[in-house]
Amino acid sequence: MPGLTLGDTVPNLELDSTHGKIRIHDFVGHGYAIIFSHPGDFTPVCTTELSAMAGYAKEFEKRGVKLLGISCDDVKSHKEWIKDIEAYKPGNRVTYPIMADPDRQAIRQLNMVDPDEKDSDGGELPSRALHIVGPDKKVKLSILYPACAGRNIDEVVRAVDALQTAAKHAVATPANWRPGERVVIPPGVSDEEARRKFPKGFDTADLPSRKGYLRFTECCG
Amino acid sequence: MPGLTLGDTVPNLELDSTHGKIRIHDFVGHGYAIIFSHPGDFTPVCTTELSAMAGYAKEFEKRGVKLLGISCDDVKSHKEWIKDIEAYKPGNRVTYPIMADPDRQAIRQLNMVDPDEKDSDGGELPSRALHIVGPDKKVKLSILYPACAGRNIDEVVRAVDALQTAAKHAVATPANWRPGERVVIPPGVSDEEARRKFPKGFDTADLPSRKGYLRFTECCG
Repeated sequence: MPGLTLGDTVPNLELDSTHGKIRIHDFVGHGYAIIFSHPGDFTPVCTTELSAMAGYAKEFEKRGVKLLGISCDDVKSHKEWIKDIEAYKPGNRVTYPIMADPDRQAIRQLNMVDPDEKDSDGGELPSRALHIVGPDKKVKLSILYPACAGRNIDEVVRAVDALQTAAKHAVATPANWRPGERVVIPPGVSDEEARRKFPKGFDTADLPSRKGYLRFTECCG
Repeated sequence: MPGLTLGDTVPNLELDSTHGKIRIHDFVGHGYAIIFSHPGDFTPVCTTELSAMAGYAKEFEKRGVKLLGISCDDVKSHKEWIKDIEAYKPGNRVTYPIMADPDRQAIRQLNMVDPDEKDSDGGELPSRALHIVGPDKKVKLSILYPACAGRNIDEVVRAVDALQTAAKHAVATPANWRPGERVVIPPGVSDEEARRKFPKGFDTADLPSRKGYLRFTECCG
């Protein structure tokens, strides 16, 4: 199935939401946003996920990241369901909007359709798709999970930290990186440039090829 | 850009690899496989990622999951580079094959193209795309990370555990689930059926809607 992928501009759709009409590009504004779908209101994994997203809302806010949910249920259903989500883990308040896409236009354009799930009328349902969108309205990172597997919100936060650190400092983050750990210097930066740019210096891994491409630095204190 | 997504069958391409010719469906066989791309050999983040995948190889093997790397570099380059990967973290042996896709046919068909990265000849380069493929050769879960952000292999292992637990026990896993934690009972299963199926019983969350859809059980001891 064709669909939105890394580097694509998210479609500038306007949809109803629990916070009124939302036009996606206006919502993203000049910051980052996470657009994430859930298969359906009043279903088990989705309740745990939207509660978890609510629990992490402050972490995302600190990073200038707005949250935007979406499913094919209507706004009235979302609003009723939010009572359940907030009762499930008291304290996790759903302060972010959830969009309604009964026509399936948005989930199709956002590459959020789950091919294995249908509603009782045979209509398409969303997967657990999540796109991190940058200030340029482009998809920076996507995770597509099926209905049966809830996401790991810690990893979403880590991914935001990695993307923002890379964008801000023109570095890259190694596998399993956590904030505070050393980052790597991208291949396009010469050693001379790197010495200027990273005053704390850098360590070049001693590898058989002797190409000197794996350079670690503590750039982002 | 159109591309492979959740639920699609992975194309049955044949490519050269560090282990000889590989036909993707034969490689997946009757188990699970993870097909993952890296932007380029002899680059920093990729070296940390392929080393990390090597370090987790036993964890994937325990779960019956085969690993299959791919980039647009040729097999000779991959083989030279593996010496660096293995020197970077001694003990992390690259026992999995890495495919060569100099023509870009595979990365295009596998939705692994990074729109922001080009090689010195202007050729397309892969993102850090990773697909978990099931025994039916279909994509069960995808993560698409850009060149600047290394993956979290712990999350890949967790995702495999979630998918396999769900498939084996016909349950679903809540947000942030870890093996050993309680799972949820899917909406299609009635309470009566659930009592038969999960002899240890289940707890239904007490939510304002009183719909009784959020049921936790310790199914998978």
